[in-house]
Amino acid sequence: MGYRTYLDLIRPLLRPDQESYSSGMRGEIKRAQTAMAAARGGKKVALVSSGDVGIYGMAGLVLELCREQGIRPGPLTGGPGVDLPLEIVPGIPALAAAAALLGAPLMHDFAAISLSDLLTPWEVIESRVRAAGAADFVIILYNPKSSQRDWQLGRVREILLELRGPATPVGIVSRAMRPGQTVIRTDLARLSEYPVDMQTIIIVGNSQTFTFADFLVTPRGYADKYEF
Amino acid sequence: MGYRTYLDLIRPLLRPDQESYSSGMRGEIKRAQTAMAAARGGKKVALVSSGDVGIYGMAGLVLELCREQGIRPGPLTGGPGVDLPLEIVPGIPALAAAAALLGAPLMHDFAAISLSDLLTPWEVIESRVRAAGAADFVIILYNPKSSQRDWQLGRVREILLELRGPATPVGIVSRAMRPGQTVIRTDLARLSEYPVDMQTIIIVGNSQTFTFADFLVTPRGYADKYEF
Repeated sequence: MGYRTYLDLIRPLLRPDQESYSSGMRGEIKRAQTAMAAARGGKKVALVSSGDVGIYGMAGLVLELCREQGIRPGPLTGGPGVDLPLEIVPGIPALAAAAALLGAPLMHDFAAISLSDLLTPWEVIESRVRAAGAADFVIILYNPKSSQRDWQLGRVREILLELRGPATPVGIVSRAMRPGQTVIRTDLARLSEYPVDMQTIIIVGNSQTFTFADFLVTPRGYADKYEF
Repeated sequence: MGYRTYLDLIRPLLRPDQESYSSGMRGEIKRAQTAMAAARGGKKVALVSSGDVGIYGMAGLVLELCREQGIRPGPLTGGPGVDLPLEIVPGIPALAAAAALLGAPLMHDFAAISLSDLLTPWEVIESRVRAAGAADFVIILYNPKSSQRDWQLGRVREILLELRGPATPVGIVSRAMRPGQTVIRTDLARLSEYPVDMQTIIIVGNSQTFTFADFLVTPRGYADKYEF
């Protein structure tokens, strides 16, 4: 079970005797509830997210629903009082896939921020961008834009330009490791010039990040400390 | 090639005709240089890190060394002027593996901070802990302690207790998905009571994180927005 776009990616791996259920954007609550009901009915269910199910993914929604509905989750082995045996399987998060395609931008401390203000007040998001920008974190922007949200990324760029130079390296990765993948290396000044969507992740370097031979690198600091 | 502990984990997967080279802690510069020299000499080399090579891993060190030594890295396909064909392969980072074992603590914005002050001034680390704490990020602490660094984690706990309640959920995961794995769910007040080492990662919840049936959950906010 999963969002249609992601389930289509793994469809070639399914066996003929496996059932599948997919739905579109914003169907995530129904999807999670359908998965939970099927699992409680005795089926073995895999609820699939893109990247890692535990990073802005479906794992938390299932647990939020369990709490709201008085369903007790527990280990796959079950046990007394366990209504829903559950295992969360980690994957390769979008931030790791994007970083690998760009070079090595996550060698030093980083902050991940989702720009979706559907469930989070914009003031909270903006305060996190400011805090991470001021403390010189590498910043990873999830959900930079959607058809209903078109101004948030521009505002984030303005805030970061108050705190970092216009030449700060920026990487823009869409559909990492999937058909249609694009990888763009640019800088903070030109961040707004490229197309982004819900399948895009953006990495903004810290004050030390440099571009070298097409690789984005945030140094750990070896070159300062040791003679090579 | 890799750090001895990590290479030992994959040794059963090596073919008899494959050579291996490992070394101990703090041998990372020599290890990277040996790998680079072998690759430039025509061997196919895999330089192995734990978790994801791109998150506080070896990918950045190789690129730092390339820049210092005037070696031009490029794609695996080579090309004009490329001295070192290089591909960075993402993996499952420790933060994702630990999160999955704990539940779903990374459903909302998070910051990763390494407490190793070997290459980073302690004041920078402390300022990032303060900034991430004040902006209500979930906080992931890498390298919390080593035989030479024993007071840093206690100091971080003090700082976070100024900004968050003592009952804030905390997860302590060592050797995630490996022999000797331990998973501890506790809170900020009791963070110092458990053994941690260089193979431990710590996740400190934000103001919304809760513990439910042995799962650590940072809600995305669905329950506030929708009727279930």
